[in-house]
Amino acid sequence: MLRDIIHKGKEKEMDNLALFGGKPVRTTPFLDWPKAGKGDLEALKRALEAGSWGGHPEPNTEAAAFAEKFAARHDMKYGICMNTGTEANRISMRSAGLKPGQEVIIPSYNWISPITSVTTCGGDPVVVDIDPDTHLMDLTLLEAALSDKTAGVVSMHYTGRIVPPEPILEFCKKHNLFYVEDCAQAHGGRWKGKAVGSFGDAAAFSFQASKILTAGEGGFVGTNNLEIANRAHAMVDNNRQKPWFTEEIRFPEVTNSRMSEFLAALLSSQLTRLDEEQVIRQKNARLLHDFMSEIPDVGSLEPVQDETTPAYWKFVITLGEPLAGISKDVFLRALMAEGIPAEPGHVPVHIHPRTTLSRDNWILVSRQEGRGAKSLPVVEHLATRVHVWLPHGILLGSEKDMEDIATAVRKVRDGMLGVNNKESTELAKTTRQVWYESAEV
Amino acid sequence: MLRDIIHKGKEKEMDNLALFGGKPVRTTPFLDWPKAGKGDLEALKRALEAGSWGGHPEPNTEAAAFAEKFAARHDMKYGICMNTGTEANRISMRSAGLKPGQEVIIPSYNWISPITSVTTCGGDPVVVDIDPDTHLMDLTLLEAALSDKTAGVVSMHYTGRIVPPEPILEFCKKHNLFYVEDCAQAHGGRWKGKAVGSFGDAAAFSFQASKILTAGEGGFVGTNNLEIANRAHAMVDNNRQKPWFTEEIRFPEVTNSRMSEFLAALLSSQLTRLDEEQVIRQKNARLLHDFMSEIPDVGSLEPVQDETTPAYWKFVITLGEPLAGISKDVFLRALMAEGIPAEPGHVPVHIHPRTTLSRDNWILVSRQEGRGAKSLPVVEHLATRVHVWLPHGILLGSEKDMEDIATAVRKVRDGMLGVNNKESTELAKTTRQVWYESAEV
Repeated sequence: MLRDIIHKGKEKEMDNLALFGGKPVRTTPFLDWPKAGKGDLEALKRALEAGSWGGHPEPNTEAAAFAEKFAARHDMKYGICMNTGTEANRISMRSAGLKPGQEVIIPSYNWISPITSVTTCGGDPVVVDIDPDTHLMDLTLLEAALSDKTAGVVSMHYTGRIVPPEPILEFCKKHNLFYVEDCAQAHGGRWKGKAVGSFGDAAAFSFQASKILTAGEGGFVGTNNLEIANRAHAMVDNNRQKPWFTEEIRFPEVTNSRMSEFLAALLSSQLTRLDEEQVIRQKNARLLHDFMSEIPDVGSLEPVQDETTPAYWKFVITLGEPLAGISKDVFLRALMAEGIPAEPGHVPVHIHPRTTLSRDNWILVSRQEGRGAKSLPVVEHLATRVHVWLPHGILLGSEKDMEDIATAVRKVRDGMLGVNNKESTELAKTTRQVWYESAEV
Repeated sequence: MLRDIIHKGKEKEMDNLALFGGKPVRTTPFLDWPKAGKGDLEALKRALEAGSWGGHPEPNTEAAAFAEKFAARHDMKYGICMNTGTEANRISMRSAGLKPGQEVIIPSYNWISPITSVTTCGGDPVVVDIDPDTHLMDLTLLEAALSDKTAGVVSMHYTGRIVPPEPILEFCKKHNLFYVEDCAQAHGGRWKGKAVGSFGDAAAFSFQASKILTAGEGGFVGTNNLEIANRAHAMVDNNRQKPWFTEEIRFPEVTNSRMSEFLAALLSSQLTRLDEEQVIRQKNARLLHDFMSEIPDVGSLEPVQDETTPAYWKFVITLGEPLAGISKDVFLRALMAEGIPAEPGHVPVHIHPRTTLSRDNWILVSRQEGRGAKSLPVVEHLATRVHVWLPHGILLGSEKDMEDIATAVRKVRDGMLGVNNKESTELAKTTRQVWYESAEV
């Protein structure tokens, strides 16, 4: 059926597409993620034999050791391990000062947990659009997003690209707000030589399976503020008061979010490879950027200016017109058929099927409509039409891997070009469901 | 100072106490828990090499395999793994039907998580006293606890002793309520040959480090009801809709509570030893029951009638008058000084320092005052005066271990007997703080 719709395109190039029965560019798999390495099994064995497997007493041995190393790597004094990145979102905001009834300014181009964490804390997310130039949180919208209920800003270093900290810090200082960096996608990244996480009041990291540093599941809150660190320790551990607390810390919400010692031990082992892997990713990403720039109608998201160590959780291919006008879904499926493990990327949170039901009324902020906007045109366009992701695992591969990706992208571009706009509307109808289903990052 | 207060007691016996410088009954350690065993490291290695470490896609391979075996062992059709017992509490209640604004009837002699889980769901715990005969949830108070907001009953199989299911099921059926069994302390237990967890609508288990079956942290919800199972699957996995769901399930609260594959693999290995360990615990507990019954002023909590397989998370020593009139704290500290790793047990939830702040007004139910009671006299007496715990790990030891425990209990009883009631009030003042601090089970 898809074939029938597209058949008015360039017949020959289209017939070559693996999606329609042609020979795929690539039949051997790319590198998979996560990846067991030297010392990993020994780390698990060490935790097993230590005979204290859980997070109690918090922080337990392995969790404390990993937290210290990971915090130091990110230019932070204090680190607290927890069981999920979702908990890291919740606990970073709450320990930075978010109270029920307050608002948090947060970008829509995001995984759902930062949003659901605001509502879990009893707060309201004020969801801003994306900057059409940087493809990151639109910092020109901060003032428009502000109200007398605003508690703070939670940014998202989207796919590892660092949101410029200076304008946010200036805004937060002016209005006495907290700034929490969501670093779930940016492990190890540096801005003007200083690590992500160290710019705001607190930072949230995730070690879920897809992440640059992972134990399958896991989370972390880092900070340079002792009070925030102490609050986070209390929150992950059923409000337990630690010997080093100078005052009582008790949140009305009480739960256990401690990290297992097995996961902390594995993370310590994985951490020894973070920097060397980062070098390989940067080198391969540079190649890919150059390849993409040579393909008509295609581009890629370069590191943000002043990003001295890009993290590359994802390599983002951008579809220019007319490709974006055809269908990102068809492009994606054609690329996957060529043997490239491409991904659709985030569904904007304000139209994500699994967050909408948690709120009747979204508070949206766009350039056109300001606060109270009905839609966020930039993020909706970028997410549904323009961005295609490649996961970081394949950036650890060979130069030949990068060449294959470029060959496949070129081939898919050539094969799709004949499809006109009317037909693309039909295509979008048939493929939208596929996109939602596979966008489960 | 303690020595000065007690000095009017039986001088000689008292001086023998290790607490006052005498020779301890036991200087070598008892068996520790948790315990690595055959196959554990291989299980972790299997999960490491499988290369899919997190809980996504839920249920992942190891989690699905363990859940099936653990559910079957407990006569249940469906099982869902999650990251903590606390989440198992929350998700079992919520998936069984608890809605914000509703009430849950629940015993005070409890760990705090079942209570905080009710409030996390937006519900109100209606906290009932303990039966002075069974030392379990007082089932004669169910009718008094009922209101038009009641959604269900959540029992607690305290220290592994099974709350008789029949009266609860009859009550729940009559008033159209759910029954959730909290089995965090009762892994593997059976009532009239049928396993715990299989009596109610759903059951919550914990695999936290102290538990009979453990991976350090972890939780599980079991049920025979497909709808409840499907709701639990959605809740642990950010509301993700599974291919096998016949209808859409979306909770307004969205979070990730998936279990790591490492923990699921380890649990599968540990599960192979559950039944044989249970036999050893039962045999040693039988010995201890007999020893305790021979010591004046001391007793122990025997398995409940119709409990065909007792679980023994803890072996509960009971202090009779006049020991209970002196001070449980002194008894406990004296016993620990003799080299016995005794524990103080639960602080009743309605007076627990880490739950009180989450609620301004507790709804209490006692025999004397009914619903709206100001205190729960039975549980307050049992917890502060009568119950002393021995952890299950030492029940896996030798007959000689049990003899040493009995010798130490006898010695402490003899040494303490001369203290009179007035002095015990002073003692309680000095030791209450110690008890609260160490009661962090």
